[in-house]
Amino acid sequence: MLISELAQQSGLTVATIKFYLREGLLPAGQVTSRTRAIYGQEHLDRLRLIRALLDVGGLPLATARSVIEVMEEGRVDRHDVVRRALYALGPDRGPEDDVHRLARKDVRRLLDGLGWLVGSDAPAIDQLAHALVVLRGSYPGAPADALLPYAAVAQGLARDEFARQPAGLDQAGLVAWAVTGTVVFESVLAAWRRLAHEDLANRDDS
Amino acid sequence: MLISELAQQSGLTVATIKFYLREGLLPAGQVTSRTRAIYGQEHLDRLRLIRALLDVGGLPLATARSVIEVMEEGRVDRHDVVRRALYALGPDRGPEDDVHRLARKDVRRLLDGLGWLVGSDAPAIDQLAHALVVLRGSYPGAPADALLPYAAVAQGLARDEFARQPAGLDQAGLVAWAVTGTVVFESVLAAWRRLAHEDLANRDDS
Repeated sequence: MLISELAQQSGLTVATIKFYLREGLLPAGQVTSRTRAIYGQEHLDRLRLIRALLDVGGLPLATARSVIEVMEEGRVDRHDVVRRALYALGPDRGPEDDVHRLARKDVRRLLDGLGWLVGSDAPAIDQLAHALVVLRGSYPGAPADALLPYAAVAQGLARDEFARQPAGLDQAGLVAWAVTGTVVFESVLAAWRRLAHEDLANRDDS
Repeated sequence: MLISELAQQSGLTVATIKFYLREGLLPAGQVTSRTRAIYGQEHLDRLRLIRALLDVGGLPLATARSVIEVMEEGRVDRHDVVRRALYALGPDRGPEDDVHRLARKDVRRLLDGLGWLVGSDAPAIDQLAHALVVLRGSYPGAPADALLPYAAVAQGLARDEFARQPAGLDQAGLVAWAVTGTVVFESVLAAWRRLAHEDLANRDDS
């Protein structure tokens, strides 16, 4: 299809698509003349992924680009792809001060206790540590164990999601599955939690 | 304390604190001379909240300001404060196209089924609808029920959090409790989910 049809089918403007092409987020179409290029299903899929990352995930462009680079890397071990895709989502490493160092140690101890197989450089470890630092800012002395109920719940959901992984995904498909699921279900969990709190506040008689 | 001490105690620079003062996020100190103002515990608390919103929540400055406005509004009904604080966190309303309208209807039907007491204008309804649209983009025909397991889990966690709400919070304290809990525990849930997926990928033998 031409870029105008790609725009129509994706619901994006031609200008937006051209921007993603310039930014290297969307691969070039097949050039058929000096002013024409042909796009296919893979371009539609890619545009859907880009919108999921930017819109639902609220990620910066640079992070979206890192994720897409994982899709386009030379053949990577199947088990490594999900890890790389998740790591590409960030966040960047937090400060190196004492409170953060202590919180990271606390989180690693929780992970050891759970027996989870994750890299010691997983950005999500830093994310947990940072959340713990902020929690301790408001509630001094909050124990790291306060985070554990969330681990059990996240593991249960992740198992269900993992069991529903479509069969036979290629590398790009596996990255798209992992990161789309991540931005979508993180947002879903957050939204339900807010609604549950509103419901609780509305029912509270105290 | 002077602004220099406030900087030291909060771990922020004087320039950052002056920026928050100019932006109306931080109330002015008590002016003691033409070039001096005195700050107190409430300023430290406010700075902690601002950092939680911007850092952990990754929220834009305008959203942080909306939250703080809820703290500073004239006396609001106690049950209304949490709702207003959560609504201030956003997100903004999504597009008005057919797929979004359908998804919103689906989400409202889920909420009716659950019997939750939430406003029909809750931004989190829009957030769920948008996530559902994105999910359906990747997995056409995905049923709204796919979101339900997350509701049950979020409700369980919200109940525990609600039960641990400190007693005797004033309006500002209640807002700080609701929004700090929201940004911290949404981040915690997301981080554990990513780690759980990495663990599952590492254990997968297929």
